[in-house]
Amino acid sequence: MGLLEGISTRRSIREFVDQPVEREQVLQIIKAGTWAPSGLNNQPWRFVIVQNADVKKELGKQTKYGFVIERAPVCIAVFVDRTVMYNDVKDHQAMGACIQNMLLATHALGLGAVWLGEILKNAEAVRTLLGLPNEMELMAVVALGHPKTQKPSSNRKAVSEVLLKEL
Amino acid sequence: MGLLEGISTRRSIREFVDQPVEREQVLQIIKAGTWAPSGLNNQPWRFVIVQNADVKKELGKQTKYGFVIERAPVCIAVFVDRTVMYNDVKDHQAMGACIQNMLLATHALGLGAVWLGEILKNAEAVRTLLGLPNEMELMAVVALGHPKTQKPSSNRKAVSEVLLKEL
Repeated sequence: MGLLEGISTRRSIREFVDQPVEREQVLQIIKAGTWAPSGLNNQPWRFVIVQNADVKKELGKQTKYGFVIERAPVCIAVFVDRTVMYNDVKDHQAMGACIQNMLLATHALGLGAVWLGEILKNAEAVRTLLGLPNEMELMAVVALGHPKTQKPSSNRKAVSEVLLKEL
Repeated sequence: MGLLEGISTRRSIREFVDQPVEREQVLQIIKAGTWAPSGLNNQPWRFVIVQNADVKKELGKQTKYGFVIERAPVCIAVFVDRTVMYNDVKDHQAMGACIQNMLLATHALGLGAVWLGEILKNAEAVRTLLGLPNEMELMAVVALGHPKTQKPSSNRKAVSEVLLKEL
């Protein structure tokens, strides 16, 4: 899949068929995340792979989108390591770049994923559930698998609506 | 260029040859940015294209990396529209996803770019210089052009260093 094509054809996938995802592919997705740029190349991202049904069930209780987590064969909980952060805004941007790389890589592999952010309201509970130390702060959960729905529609503003000026 | 290949071969490019960039390509890069996901699909990104030498010179005075801005044929100042934001962390992540798409699209087009963040220390001065209203907050400047240096090296931690657990 071409890079430009992949960027514009990626969609949020929330329904998955009952088919496991190869571990090697999950690692490729995480690797793609790590190729994101970060300020001072501090690489603040950390990951937890969740596939165990009981853990997914407990994780799902922390968001109103728990049904997506329970049905996804793989969830990747994405954390920022507060001990290596240097600037909140820039580190959060880097985490967004990392997650976007993960979504694009998922798409490139013929899989589907959705970026779950509503669960951040229970970031502390998720951290405790996954048995992580205080310095790990939840940034998102990426739920992924083989897509049931191939091409949900989506829309974006025209460039003319978001281009403020040309100087 | 393949999507996975593009993600891992993108590098920060800070030196450019003296050759203009087609406006159509600049618009493609911005369009790629807008294909990023955002919470509630609020699409908070806004853009200013800067090519005028005098404006680039003034912009460059706001960062110690001004020499990159002055030498780049095109700079895209990326803003977040505070009036449509709903959550600081999530909106900043969305802006990072948007900027990452822009960097990947630049790479796909055979161009090079660097994400400049140090200039955020003078976000207000940049906003005033570009004549934008208070609600526009600078998120980054992307400097781009035809690359002089093709392949700067870079490195990332191994996946085993950032994968905390598998459950």
